Amino acid sequence: MSTYQRIVLASRPAGAVVPDNFRLETVPVPELSEGQVLIQNHFLSLDPYMRGRMSDAKSYAAPQPLNETMIGGTAGVVVASRNPKFAVGDGVAGMGGWAEMMVSDGALLRKVGGSKVPLSAYLGVLGMPGMTAWYGFNQIMKAKAGETIVVSAASGAVGSVVGQLAKLKGCRAVGIAGGKDKCDYVVDELGFDACIDYKAGNLEADLAAATPNGVDAIFENVGGAVFDAALGRTNAFARVALCGMIAGYNGEDVPIKNARMLLTNRVHLEGFIVTEHMELWPQGLSELATLLAGGKLKFRESVAQGLAAAPEAFIGLLAGKNFGKQVVKLIK
Amino acid sequence: MSTYQRIVLASRPAGAVVPDNFRLETVPVPELSEGQVLIQNHFLSLDPYMRGRMSDAKSYAAPQPLNETMIGGTAGVVVASRNPKFAVGDGVAGMGGWAEMMVSDGALLRKVGGSKVPLSAYLGVLGMPGMTAWYGFNQIMKAKAGETIVVSAASGAVGSVVGQLAKLKGCRAVGIAGGKDKCDYVVDELGFDACIDYKAGNLEADLAAATPNGVDAIFENVGGAVFDAALGRTNAFARVALCGMIAGYNGEDVPIKNARMLLTNRVHLEGFIVTEHMELWPQGLSELATLLAGGKLKFRESVAQGLAAAPEAFIGLLAGKNFGKQVVKLIK
Repeated sequence: MSTYQRIVLASRPAGAVVPDNFRLETVPVPELSEGQVLIQNHFLSLDPYMRGRMSDAKSYAAPQPLNETMIGGTAGVVVASRNPKFAVGDGVAGMGGWAEMMVSDGALLRKVGGSKVPLSAYLGVLGMPGMTAWYGFNQIMKAKAGETIVVSAASGAVGSVVGQLAKLKGCRAVGIAGGKDKCDYVVDELGFDACIDYKAGNLEADLAAATPNGVDAIFENVGGAVFDAALGRTNAFARVALCGMIAGYNGEDVPIKNARMLLTNRVHLEGFIVTEHMELWPQGLSELATLLAGGKLKFRESVAQGLAAAPEAFIGLLAGKNFGKQVVKLIK
Repeated sequence: MSTYQRIVLASRPAGAVVPDNFRLETVPVPELSEGQVLIQNHFLSLDPYMRGRMSDAKSYAAPQPLNETMIGGTAGVVVASRNPKFAVGDGVAGMGGWAEMMVSDGALLRKVGGSKVPLSAYLGVLGMPGMTAWYGFNQIMKAKAGETIVVSAASGAVGSVVGQLAKLKGCRAVGIAGGKDKCDYVVDELGFDACIDYKAGNLEADLAAATPNGVDAIFENVGGAVFDAALGRTNAFARVALCGMIAGYNGEDVPIKNARMLLTNRVHLEGFIVTEHMELWPQGLSELATLLAGGKLKFRESVAQGLAAAPEAFIGLLAGKNFGKQVVKLIK
C-alpha cells in the first residue's frame, strides 16, 4: 500500500450537510520517522459532534479546517512501527479521522483489543459514546434506585448505555427514539421500561403516561421539542445532563420553551464534553468493560461499508436514520 | 385596637395582575392563646415570588388560597405576648402577610433589631432578598476575583446585593436594569463597573461592550431577552444562578433562545429557592450584617404608604416601576 484514501472537508455546510461538503482523496502513505507508528484503520466512528466542527461558529472546539482530513475516532491495527511502545499487530484506538491509514507518534493512542470484543466496540460502548453515557449518568444525573430517568436518542450509542446503566441502578428508564423499530429494540432488547416514539405525534401525552411519577433526571442528546417534553415532566430537584442538541446542528434556533421549569423545579443542569474529563476515563471504561464482559451491556451498530460511504452515513446519522452506533468499516 | 386591616386574594389573575385580584378587609384582633404573641407589622415586603403564588399552576409552593391573607414577609414589634420567649417591644421578622397585625406562636419568628439598622432592612438586605443574593453568589456562581458577572434587575433588592458581593470579591460586576436612573444608581452608588439599560434598545451590543472578556457567571432575576443576552456572552464553564423569571409571571412562554450556549459552553445552571436552604441563613445573614455595619453594603427602598397602597405597589413592582427594595409602611 503506497497510497490510501481519506475524506477532507471541502466546504462548510450552509444549513444541512450535503455530500459536496466532503471530498474523497487518494494520498501517499508517508515514510515513518523515528517514534512513529502506521495504523490501518479498521473502523471509523461517526458522531454528531462532527457536525459542530464543520461550522466555524464559536464553540468549545476549533472548527475543522477546510481541505484537511475530517476529524474522527478510529480503531485499527498497527502495520508498521518505529515506536518501541507499539508492535505490528497491536490493536489501537485513536483520532485517525476519516481515513484508511493513520500516522501517529503514539501520544494519543489507546491500546485496545486482546479480548473477544470486536474492535468497533472501542468506538462505541467502550469508547467515547460509552464514556459520555457513564459520565453524564454518574457525575451529573446521579440517579438513585426508584427514580425515573428520561434519555433521548435512546437507541443510539450514548442513549442506549445511559438507559442500561439506569436499569442496573434500579431506576425506571424511559427512552425517546424515532420510530417503532427503535422503540421496540430499546424496550425488548435493552430492557428500558418504556420508549416513546416521538414520530408518533403524541410526544407529551405519551411521555406523561410513561412517567407517572414525573422525571428525576434527563440525559439530553437531542434538544428542541424532545427536551421540552422531558423538562415539562420534571420533579423538584431534577438533574439534566446536557450532552447534545442535534436538533439545532444546522444553525437554527433550538429554544427551550419550558425554561420556567428550570426555576420552579430547581433544576440542576450541566452541559458537558466528555473529553474534558479524561481523568475519569480509566475508571469509566473499566466499569463499562466489566459490564460488557458480564453480558450486562448490549449494543448495536449500523455499519457502513467503505470510506466512500461515510458522508452518506453521516448525513443519515444527523437525520436519525442509523440504528445503534454508526461506524464505517474501512477494510474489506 | 380591636380591629386591623388585611388584604386577601379575591381572584386569580387572568394574565396581568389587576387591583381587583385583591380585597381589603377589616377583621377583629383575635384573643391570644397561651404561647402566642401579637405583632404590629411595621413593614410588609413585596416580592416577585408572590405573583407565582397567585396562580394555581404547578409550582414549588402551594398556591395562595383565595379569600385568605396574601402571603408576605413582615417586620414589626411585639405588642402583646403570652410567650415567654418574646416580650412587648421586641423587634421581629416573620411571614405576617399583607396585614397590619399578626398572631404567631413564635415558631417562625426571627428576633431582629436592637441596632441602628431600620426594621425594613430585615425585609431586604438582611432578609430573604439579601440571603437570595448571598446564596446564589456563593453557592452557585462561585465567582473568583477577575471574573465577570452579570446580574439582571441590578438595582433591585437581590441584584444590588449580588453586584456588591461581586465587587467585594474582586470581580467585574455588570448590571442590567431598566432606565437611566436605575443604571446611574447601580454604577454611581452601588459601585458596579457597568450597567446596561435594557430599555435603550441595544441590549446585546451594549452588553457585549461591557463584557469584553465574556461572562463567567450570571445571576438571573428576569428571564427572557435579558437572560438570552447574558447567555450569549458566556465563557466556557459559566455558572448560572437562576433565581427568577419575572418576564414570564403572567403565564406567557419565556423561552431560552440561546439554549445552545448551555451546551457549547458547558454551562452549570441551577434554579434555586433560598427558603430551601435555611441551614445557611445564619452564616449568610451574619456576613451580610457585618458588611452592612461596615458600610460596605448599600441599599435603597421604595416605600409605599399604608396597606391599601400594597396592590398598586405590587403591580408596579412586576412592571419594574420600583427603585430598590419595595416595602409597604404599615404604620403612620
